[in-house]
Amino acid sequence: MSIEQFSGKGRLADTGEGITGDELQLAARNHGMPLEALRYDLTPAGLHYVLVHYDIPAASATNWRLTVDGCVEQPLSFGMTELRAMGRQTVRVTLECAGNGRAGLQPRPISQPWLMEAVGTAEWTGVPLAALIRAAGIRKDAIDVVFTGADHGFERGIEQDYQRGLTVTEALDSGAIVAWEMNGAPLPPQHGYPLRLIMPGWYGMASVKWLRSIELIDHEFTGYQNAVAYRIRQEPNEVGVGITRIEPRALLIPPGHPDFMSRHRFVPAGPIVLQGRAWSGWAPIERVEVSVDAGVSWQDAKLDADSNDLSWRGFSFDWDAVPGEHVLTVRAHDASGRVQPIEAPWNRGGFANNSAQRITVLVLSQPSA
Amino acid sequence: MSIEQFSGKGRLADTGEGITGDELQLAARNHGMPLEALRYDLTPAGLHYVLVHYDIPAASATNWRLTVDGCVEQPLSFGMTELRAMGRQTVRVTLECAGNGRAGLQPRPISQPWLMEAVGTAEWTGVPLAALIRAAGIRKDAIDVVFTGADHGFERGIEQDYQRGLTVTEALDSGAIVAWEMNGAPLPPQHGYPLRLIMPGWYGMASVKWLRSIELIDHEFTGYQNAVAYRIRQEPNEVGVGITRIEPRALLIPPGHPDFMSRHRFVPAGPIVLQGRAWSGWAPIERVEVSVDAGVSWQDAKLDADSNDLSWRGFSFDWDAVPGEHVLTVRAHDASGRVQPIEAPWNRGGFANNSAQRITVLVLSQPSA
Repeated sequence: MSIEQFSGKGRLADTGEGITGDELQLAARNHGMPLEALRYDLTPAGLHYVLVHYDIPAASATNWRLTVDGCVEQPLSFGMTELRAMGRQTVRVTLECAGNGRAGLQPRPISQPWLMEAVGTAEWTGVPLAALIRAAGIRKDAIDVVFTGADHGFERGIEQDYQRGLTVTEALDSGAIVAWEMNGAPLPPQHGYPLRLIMPGWYGMASVKWLRSIELIDHEFTGYQNAVAYRIRQEPNEVGVGITRIEPRALLIPPGHPDFMSRHRFVPAGPIVLQGRAWSGWAPIERVEVSVDAGVSWQDAKLDADSNDLSWRGFSFDWDAVPGEHVLTVRAHDASGRVQPIEAPWNRGGFANNSAQRITVLVLSQPSA
Repeated sequence: MSIEQFSGKGRLADTGEGITGDELQLAARNHGMPLEALRYDLTPAGLHYVLVHYDIPAASATNWRLTVDGCVEQPLSFGMTELRAMGRQTVRVTLECAGNGRAGLQPRPISQPWLMEAVGTAEWTGVPLAALIRAAGIRKDAIDVVFTGADHGFERGIEQDYQRGLTVTEALDSGAIVAWEMNGAPLPPQHGYPLRLIMPGWYGMASVKWLRSIELIDHEFTGYQNAVAYRIRQEPNEVGVGITRIEPRALLIPPGHPDFMSRHRFVPAGPIVLQGRAWSGWAPIERVEVSVDAGVSWQDAKLDADSNDLSWRGFSFDWDAVPGEHVLTVRAHDASGRVQPIEAPWNRGGFANNSAQRITVLVLSQPSA
């Protein structure tokens, strides 16, 4: 056995190939947000989606250090107490995994097999990233900022710490924070305890967990997670386009009651209020459409108050459920003009897929017990 | 479409059939404990395994009621404040899903596709169940005690609240508590907020979440989750044997660093301490054996101090890792004489499977970076 056999190339599933054992191992470790948890304005920590590339590192806030160095005037190193003295801000952020929706694709890229529940919204508290970088002083030759987590492993034969890069402009202007609290409590281990980056509006891969180093460099960052993974490609060898902000998506709370195994829904006939949330990392949500006939016809949902940030926005729709089978679907529009597609274009990594949710519902003429 | 088409019969996977879309939906909602979390004595709430049959119900502690009625001298109804006045006890409990290990079986029963991480240990705080039942007074005709949760749905065509029964003796003598705290905090929604049963030593299906009713009945309980599901059967139509206590199992913390996709492990050559936990619902753990050659030879692990309850017990094993590929495996013995098998016998529901863990490790002659 060699490293290559232990840590292989990416691939697409064969036609009709079921979910593989490797995909199942990831699905059993990582988890989405059960969609009924769309009912909570803020997702409780244990219900928020989580994706961990390698292992959750053992970590202690007591001896944790964050360094800010590289192309800076004055390299800095912070313990948790020193960091807390640098400022405190709370931001409400909807995070979504860049691979959300992947498992529904044909052909299916073999990786973490998300359906469409890899999302969550939390209030993250920490110090603005810009304050830390400015405290160190940005040298003129600085081009990119590299964030390094304490998680370490292999991907496609390459041993690495989890690392992501941003341009200096993105790092300064995106409202990013270096967070130590989630929903008012210390970060849970799986969400980056004791310290993580939060990049509002960006897919989750940018929000590096277990953050231990911020390094300014004088060239473009070409690490694995920017240059190899997390790119939109049609063919394996093309350069592709790096993934940044979250595409618009709306999700309904599945109404009624589920079947344990199929997750199909049973709904008693009569008036029912359908509810859900919609979000986009590009601009606030300004319209949500609902269809109760599998997309043949669409009607506007009622939007909740605007949150004045990029976090999700609630919506509701009054439906008079008549007996029989129905397919509910929903799509979001944001203020940048982006419209969620019924079916998003395929790409080889299964990234940024925002195809519309479909919920199969059987409306029962007798009220459910 | 009919109820039967929405909520079908159980089945076994065909030969070579990959994990199905239905199984994946469950794997994306529910989740195991990432095995590196075996490092924590108490599993943080968001890392503890969770299985929800239907939806997590919307619930509020403010207006929650628990009734104790049926074959009792005096039916009772408790709000949360009244319950807290009935007593307070904290128990440390290892819970494991009865379906843990199912996805590794051949043929594979189609249900929640657990590998082997459906476990967790927490401190649960609440009032002893026996105190509540005794406060109501047990009538002589009482035979079984039925626990009803607020979760509601369909299984194999049968609409139901989640319900489980115990005999009166089991309910009084098993150290069960009605809990409102997990690890010192209110129960998270997915673990039964605001109130759940905890049955120490039993597989998780007995610890009814979102508990709203305790009813003593004068006959044997024949509800779905006792009489249809959660039974050991070889053939679909046999009566089978009800599932109760947890079979012994040991799990190692996977050493070294993982590959993202295969989860195979890379370990630098040299001395390393392998660590893990073992548990049994029948009796305390008294021996754990480790094999670093796929089960050809076995050596005793060093046990941590006995916890004096049925919760997991830590162990460690000094390994001098030599370069090459190795398969690590481990097995537990408890004080009742039960020994964890290398391969547990198959049953149709994939229940109570405690086949030994196997971890494939590549030991690298050069130290890992």
